[in-house]
Amino acid sequence: MAYFDWNATAPLLPAARTAWLEATGNGWGNPSSLYRTGIRAKGMLDSARADIAAALEVDASCVIFTSGASESNNAFLRIVRERELSDGQVWISSVEHPSVREACRHYWGDGRIVQMPVTRDGVLDVDWLADRLKTARPALVCLMAVNNVTGVIQPVRQVNEICRLLGIPFFCDAVQWFGKCGGPLGAGAGGMSFSLSAHKFGGLKGTGCLVLAEEWLGSRLQFGGGQESGSRAGTEDVAGIAAMAAALVNRLRPVDTPVRAARDTFEGKLTGFWPDVVIHGKQAPRVWNTCCFSLPDYPANRWISRLDRKGFEVSSGAACSSAKDGPSSVLRSMGVDDSVAGRTIRVSGGWETSPDDWDALFDAIGEVYHELGESGPESGPGYVIRI
Amino acid sequence: MAYFDWNATAPLLPAARTAWLEATGNGWGNPSSLYRTGIRAKGMLDSARADIAAALEVDASCVIFTSGASESNNAFLRIVRERELSDGQVWISSVEHPSVREACRHYWGDGRIVQMPVTRDGVLDVDWLADRLKTARPALVCLMAVNNVTGVIQPVRQVNEICRLLGIPFFCDAVQWFGKCGGPLGAGAGGMSFSLSAHKFGGLKGTGCLVLAEEWLGSRLQFGGGQESGSRAGTEDVAGIAAMAAALVNRLRPVDTPVRAARDTFEGKLTGFWPDVVIHGKQAPRVWNTCCFSLPDYPANRWISRLDRKGFEVSSGAACSSAKDGPSSVLRSMGVDDSVAGRTIRVSGGWETSPDDWDALFDAIGEVYHELGESGPESGPGYVIRI
Repeated sequence: MAYFDWNATAPLLPAARTAWLEATGNGWGNPSSLYRTGIRAKGMLDSARADIAAALEVDASCVIFTSGASESNNAFLRIVRERELSDGQVWISSVEHPSVREACRHYWGDGRIVQMPVTRDGVLDVDWLADRLKTARPALVCLMAVNNVTGVIQPVRQVNEICRLLGIPFFCDAVQWFGKCGGPLGAGAGGMSFSLSAHKFGGLKGTGCLVLAEEWLGSRLQFGGGQESGSRAGTEDVAGIAAMAAALVNRLRPVDTPVRAARDTFEGKLTGFWPDVVIHGKQAPRVWNTCCFSLPDYPANRWISRLDRKGFEVSSGAACSSAKDGPSSVLRSMGVDDSVAGRTIRVSGGWETSPDDWDALFDAIGEVYHELGESGPESGPGYVIRI
Repeated sequence: MAYFDWNATAPLLPAARTAWLEATGNGWGNPSSLYRTGIRAKGMLDSARADIAAALEVDASCVIFTSGASESNNAFLRIVRERELSDGQVWISSVEHPSVREACRHYWGDGRIVQMPVTRDGVLDVDWLADRLKTARPALVCLMAVNNVTGVIQPVRQVNEICRLLGIPFFCDAVQWFGKCGGPLGAGAGGMSFSLSAHKFGGLKGTGCLVLAEEWLGSRLQFGGGQESGSRAGTEDVAGIAAMAAALVNRLRPVDTPVRAARDTFEGKLTGFWPDVVIHGKQAPRVWNTCCFSLPDYPANRWISRLDRKGFEVSSGAACSSAKDGPSSVLRSMGVDDSVAGRTIRVSGGWETSPDDWDALFDAIGEVYHELGESGPESGPGYVIRI
C-alpha cells in the first residue's frame, strides 16, 4: 500500500512514540504538583517547550500548548475579537483553511470579512493587499503558510512585515509548513502569531501549539487554572507534548534530495503522458510533497476509488460534501472552472514516500486510465480531501 | 513511594496503554478520509464512542470528544452565553471548580453570577435553591458531581430533576465522578449536560468529553470542519479516545471492598490519635478515596514537605497561590476558618492504593508529628492541591 495523503495526516514517528512511552511511564504526574512525581512531569514539559521554542526560533514564553490547530485558530480569533474595541474588518486570504474562515464568520460575521484574492497560481496577491492598505486598516490579517490543497507557499514573511510596520495584527495558520519546509517560519522577527498541529509532522493527533506574538502574551484561551502561564487552563498533556517536541526536532532536518525530487519527476511524467493535465500552482513556490492536478477525463471519484483498490490512497476535492468550504473553494479562488475542479486529485507524499512509490503511483494512474476507458459508467464512493 | 493525590491525576491504566498502542499502530489514519487507512481509524473512533456512550448510559450522538474537562466546561459555557437571548443570571455552587467559575466570570461577568451556598459539610443547599427558584429563573445552573477538595458527592440528580421540570439548563462538571463512583451519572434521564476528563480515571491527559443534553445538540465548540457531527472541528485524537474508552470501561467496575474501606479505617485512626482533627465533609456522602482533614498543629506545607521526604505525595490548599479560587475557597464556603484551612491536607487514593499504603500513611503522619514537635520553625515549599 502506498499512502499519498500526508497533508491529511502522517503516521507517528518512532522518536515521538519513544518520547510518549517515556512520558507516560516516568512523567505521568500532574506537572502543577510540587512533589516529586509532579516535578518529573514538569521537567519533561519544560524540556519539550524549550525544544519546540528553539525549533520555532521563538521565545518559550510565546508557546501555548493546545489540542491542535483547529483549537489554536478558533481561540486566537476569539481573543482578537474580544479585545477589539471598534467594529473592524478581518482580512483573510481566499484560500484559508475552514478553521480560520468559519471561526472568522462566527466571531465577525460575513459582512466584516474581506477575502484577499490569490493569483491563478494560488499565491496571495500582495499588490492587492498593499494597495488596499493605503486606505483601510483591518483589525487582523490572516494568511496561511502553505495551502493544504495545492502545496503553494504563501508570502507570510512579506505580509507579516507589511502588517508589522503598519501595526496590524497578523495571524498565520502554519499547519502545512512544519514537516515539509524544514525550517522555522520566520516568526522570530516579531509580529506574527501562528498555529501548528503535531499530527501533520509525525506527532500525535490532539496536540498542537498556538504561538503568540508579544502583543498577545497573557491572552487567555481557556479559563480556570494557571497552566501555560495562565493562558490555557487545563492539565497539560505532557506525553503528547513530549511526542510533539520529538517529532518537530526530527522533522526539522531537510528531507533527502531524492525524496524531494520525486514529485517533480512524477509531474514530468504526468504532463508527458497527458499534455493537457493541469497542475495547480505549478508556477508558484510549492512544498516538495504535494501535487494537485486535474486529469483530462473522468470524475475524480472514479480515479480515486480505482487507485484505492490498487493500494494507492489519494484524495480529491470533487466530492467534498461541504463544497463551499472544501478544496473546491480553493480552486475556485484560483479561477479554476468547476468542471476542471471535478477532475482534480491531490497527492501528497511524506518522508517515508520513496521515488519508487511515486513511480508506482504514475503507473497505477496509467492502468486506471486504461481501465476507465474500457469500463462503462460507474458510481464510486465520494472521496474528499481531508485537511 | 505512595502516591496519594489521585484527585490531581492518575497513572495510565495498562488497558488504556494497549488501546493507544493499537490505535497509533493500525489506526493512525485520518478518520475523515474515505480510503482504507482512514476507514480503519474511523472504525476505532466509532467503537470508542459506542463504548463510552454505553458506559455513560447516553446516546452516542451526545458525546463530543474534547481535549479535557477544562475545554468542555469553557466551551459549554460560551455556547450557553451565546445562545442566551436575555441578560440572565448563571447560578453556580460556591464550591465549583475554577474552570467553571472563571469561565462564567468571563462570559457573564461577576455581577450576573449567583453562588449557591453549601452546608457546613460541603453539600449544595438544595432547600436554598428550591426557595430561590420560586421567584427567579437563571439562564443556567451548574453543580459539580463530586467536589475535588473534599470528595463530597453533590445531589446532581435531584438538582437536574428540579431544573428539568422548570426548563432550566443544567450543567455538571463530573470530572471527579468517573473512576471513583463506579457507575453512570444519571444523565440518561435527560436534561443534563456534563464533562469528564480521562486522566482522572486512568486515561490520557488531553482527552475528555462534553456530553450534551438533547437541547444542546448541534452546538459548535470549534468551527471549521465536520468532525464530531459538526460540533467540534479538528481531526479527532483517535488513539487518545480509544485509550479513554478502555480506561472508562475498566474503571466502571466497583473498587474492591478492602480498598474502599481503607480510607475509613485511616480516618478512624486519625481521629483516635488526634480527637480534634477536623475531617471536612465527614457527615456528607463522599467518594471512597478522598480524605480532606485539618490537623491540630503546624502549617500544612510543613506536614506535606516532610511527608514527601518520606515518600508520601499528598497536597494541600493552604499555600495555593491563587487562594480566591483555590481549595481555600471551597473550605471557606463550608464555613471553615482560614486558620484551620491553613492546616489542611487532602489525601486521595486510587485503585492501586492498598490498605497497607493507608496504614503506612497514618504511621508517617505520626512520625512527622513527632519530628515537627522536636524541630524549630521551618519554611518548606508551598504545596498546592492541583485540581
